Amino acid sequence: MMPPGGADARSDQLAELNALRHNMLCATETGDLLNQAADTPDLSDWQRANVREISRRRASSMALSEDFVLARTKACNTCETVWRQARADADFKAVLPHLENLLSLVREEAEAKAEVLGLGLYDALLNDYDPGTRSEHFDQVFDDLETFLPEFLGQALEHQASQANVIRPQGPFPVDKQKDLGTGFMKALGFDFDHGRLDVSLHPFCGGFSDDIRITTRYDDADFTSSLMGVLHETGHALYEMGLPQDWRSQPVGDARGMSLHESQSLLFEMQVCRSQEFLTYAAPIMAEAFEGQGPAWSADNLSRLYSHVEPGFIRVDADEVTYPAHVILRYRLERALIEGDMEAADIPTAWNEALQRILGITPPSDREGCLQDIHWYDGAWGYFPTYTLGAMMAAQIFDAARTAEPDILPSIARGNFQPLLNWLRKNVHGYASKFETPELLEKATGRPLDAETFKTHLKSRYLGRPL
Amino acid sequence: MMPPGGADARSDQLAELNALRHNMLCATETGDLLNQAADTPDLSDWQRANVREISRRRASSMALSEDFVLARTKACNTCETVWRQARADADFKAVLPHLENLLSLVREEAEAKAEVLGLGLYDALLNDYDPGTRSEHFDQVFDDLETFLPEFLGQALEHQASQANVIRPQGPFPVDKQKDLGTGFMKALGFDFDHGRLDVSLHPFCGGFSDDIRITTRYDDADFTSSLMGVLHETGHALYEMGLPQDWRSQPVGDARGMSLHESQSLLFEMQVCRSQEFLTYAAPIMAEAFEGQGPAWSADNLSRLYSHVEPGFIRVDADEVTYPAHVILRYRLERALIEGDMEAADIPTAWNEALQRILGITPPSDREGCLQDIHWYDGAWGYFPTYTLGAMMAAQIFDAARTAEPDILPSIARGNFQPLLNWLRKNVHGYASKFETPELLEKATGRPLDAETFKTHLKSRYLGRPL
Repeated sequence: MMPPGGADARSDQLAELNALRHNMLCATETGDLLNQAADTPDLSDWQRANVREISRRRASSMALSEDFVLARTKACNTCETVWRQARADADFKAVLPHLENLLSLVREEAEAKAEVLGLGLYDALLNDYDPGTRSEHFDQVFDDLETFLPEFLGQALEHQASQANVIRPQGPFPVDKQKDLGTGFMKALGFDFDHGRLDVSLHPFCGGFSDDIRITTRYDDADFTSSLMGVLHETGHALYEMGLPQDWRSQPVGDARGMSLHESQSLLFEMQVCRSQEFLTYAAPIMAEAFEGQGPAWSADNLSRLYSHVEPGFIRVDADEVTYPAHVILRYRLERALIEGDMEAADIPTAWNEALQRILGITPPSDREGCLQDIHWYDGAWGYFPTYTLGAMMAAQIFDAARTAEPDILPSIARGNFQPLLNWLRKNVHGYASKFETPELLEKATGRPLDAETFKTHLKSRYLGRPL
Repeated sequence: MMPPGGADARSDQLAELNALRHNMLCATETGDLLNQAADTPDLSDWQRANVREISRRRASSMALSEDFVLARTKACNTCETVWRQARADADFKAVLPHLENLLSLVREEAEAKAEVLGLGLYDALLNDYDPGTRSEHFDQVFDDLETFLPEFLGQALEHQASQANVIRPQGPFPVDKQKDLGTGFMKALGFDFDHGRLDVSLHPFCGGFSDDIRITTRYDDADFTSSLMGVLHETGHALYEMGLPQDWRSQPVGDARGMSLHESQSLLFEMQVCRSQEFLTYAAPIMAEAFEGQGPAWSADNLSRLYSHVEPGFIRVDADEVTYPAHVILRYRLERALIEGDMEAADIPTAWNEALQRILGITPPSDREGCLQDIHWYDGAWGYFPTYTLGAMMAAQIFDAARTAEPDILPSIARGNFQPLLNWLRKNVHGYASKFETPELLEKATGRPLDAETFKTHLKSRYLGRPL
């Protein structure tokens, strides 16, 4: 909603709030109060977890000096600005000196946090996005996936070729009808419009505070399917925020538990629920009615093929469910080597293209479709990428646990009733907020630590037609 | 934009920010720094004014204890909530105990501030809304107006009866066309959409920060005239904010100078400029084209009669330019007596109705259309009402000074060119921000202190057809 000329002032305001927060967290008084709280014998589990969460944030803040934070913020801003032009020009060399400067600060940050937190360099950065998750938890899982994917992709493409062709529904699809359709499904899934809105923005997001959750989408009047699925994805994020416990609102322990779990909730709805045969059986006639669509393009079977189409490509954000992990694992390997000093920024383009060729068998025509495509590294978000695929695997594992615990969940979805699923998620995921670290929460909710098996089983079912 | 369920959380967030601001302002360190700054010999005029503004805010904050502010905030919230129902029920008695409680806190606040600031009780409250303006500056002006208005109103109604009847343009007027028309005029007046937006809300307002100004309106598809004039009013507020000096953004001296001057800028555009024959000569064909209107309803003369129609009524916010000051002066007299202890809250309905009968010759059918109509007293905004009529008089005085200084201003308006006016305002009003207190700024801009004469001359010209 912000007019472009408001950006500088807004960024000053946010910097001011961040500085206030930093100073409050790092104040000696805060440290004393935390020590006092930690020594109090009769804290509840929630109170103790709250003290842990505040201490974690404090330790992370204390690791960096105010001067360093300022230098880092500045390096991020500069690098990101140059990157926007470099991406447009497919000119990695133009951004390289700025990326090198930023990388050296990121390494410094990793060292400082690693020392304070007693973690490895990579985990020290990951910990800010996903507290408690360590790379040792998923290194083997990623290895496993990386071995599995190339062969599986071949099988999936073969299976796809044996199926009927996808028929794309023909538009135009008026924006107001797309919006009505999206809000209708949001309501059905459980989104509370008394505590949230759906708006339009260039880059879709879910933001705000639990009592006021804003999600956005962008509409293409020639194709409603992509925007609609985006809305359902953001609705998954929103339902998580809306389901956080009222009693702990605005306390650190009451916040959502990290980016992996957040992504698991959006992907649970987008990938597990809303691309399922059950959901599309319920949704297909509603979609057809919304746009007065008729014929085979509007059948649940066709929409299901459309929503599970596999096609290797260069761009992560456009990737399908099968090839997406390849993009993430590639980035994880590279950023880990970069952070740990086993590789330099100048080597990124060659390493990127080799890795993509190895996993997906394709090579980008230029760095624009390669190592310049994502904002993350150029904006200072190092250690973030694994959370996408961790989220996808957790989504499969959590949905599997939910269906096993409540056999009514899937049949209810086919009838457009999402309450059994939402009730289970409220109780086993959302309601815990940040009471546990991610691995413990996942194990409580699903009875086992993170594994790739459920995700692989899900892929085999959807893309090879094998029974679950 | 906020969904209703977000209100509690938002209000907690604002309270937290207010507390942070209060603590920073009242900190001993802030006092020491201000003393140090005041003793610095080589401050520029702007720097010295900035120190004065910070000191004024600090003195106002220091006058009240944190406990008192909390009690007052709570009393306001309760009283306002009960008032909403009491107004709907036309039941003054229902809200009376809460209003009495709030009034006693307001009196306490006035005493505390009066002592710290060395002002009278009423002026101590007014000072928060309009720094530097004292009731002694306008008591005589209000007396003058109060004597003038009853007879003038009779003359204006007589004159109006001698004119052709108003013909209302017939709708429907589609909302998107109303919005296009409004944004077109906003651009013409000088509103910069790179630093602002026009949106929809139940109660029109202008808010935000100088680099990101949001104005709102509400649309009625049976009548575009009221929403359009509302947009032009808010545009006046917005142009003031947008014209504040860049060099002092986010410093207290860089803020707009109080509510009277702010209202003078909105009323200058709404009342002086956009209801003028010159503006309507330019705007009438644009309005007609926007709605494909034809015939005598769309002539500049008819629209001018429509936009200067006089009709005494009970409701302040619906009042025309002639009767509006009567509503304000009535409220000023009553709130002053209440604050100074010369009257009690229980006496409000009787005193209200007597005063309205005396000034406008009408008596409201119930307290809903009488003393329950405005939120101000029930929400704790005591000492605010005079700023509306001070703004109206300043608008007349400032516009008169501008036209005298730049004879091209009026002819340019008739051609849809507002730049000469805006340039003059930027230089003589907007660009000063809070460098001077209101009376000094007005005198610098217009060459004389506030008087009622220019406003009365304006009324005589518009409503009796007398030459300026």
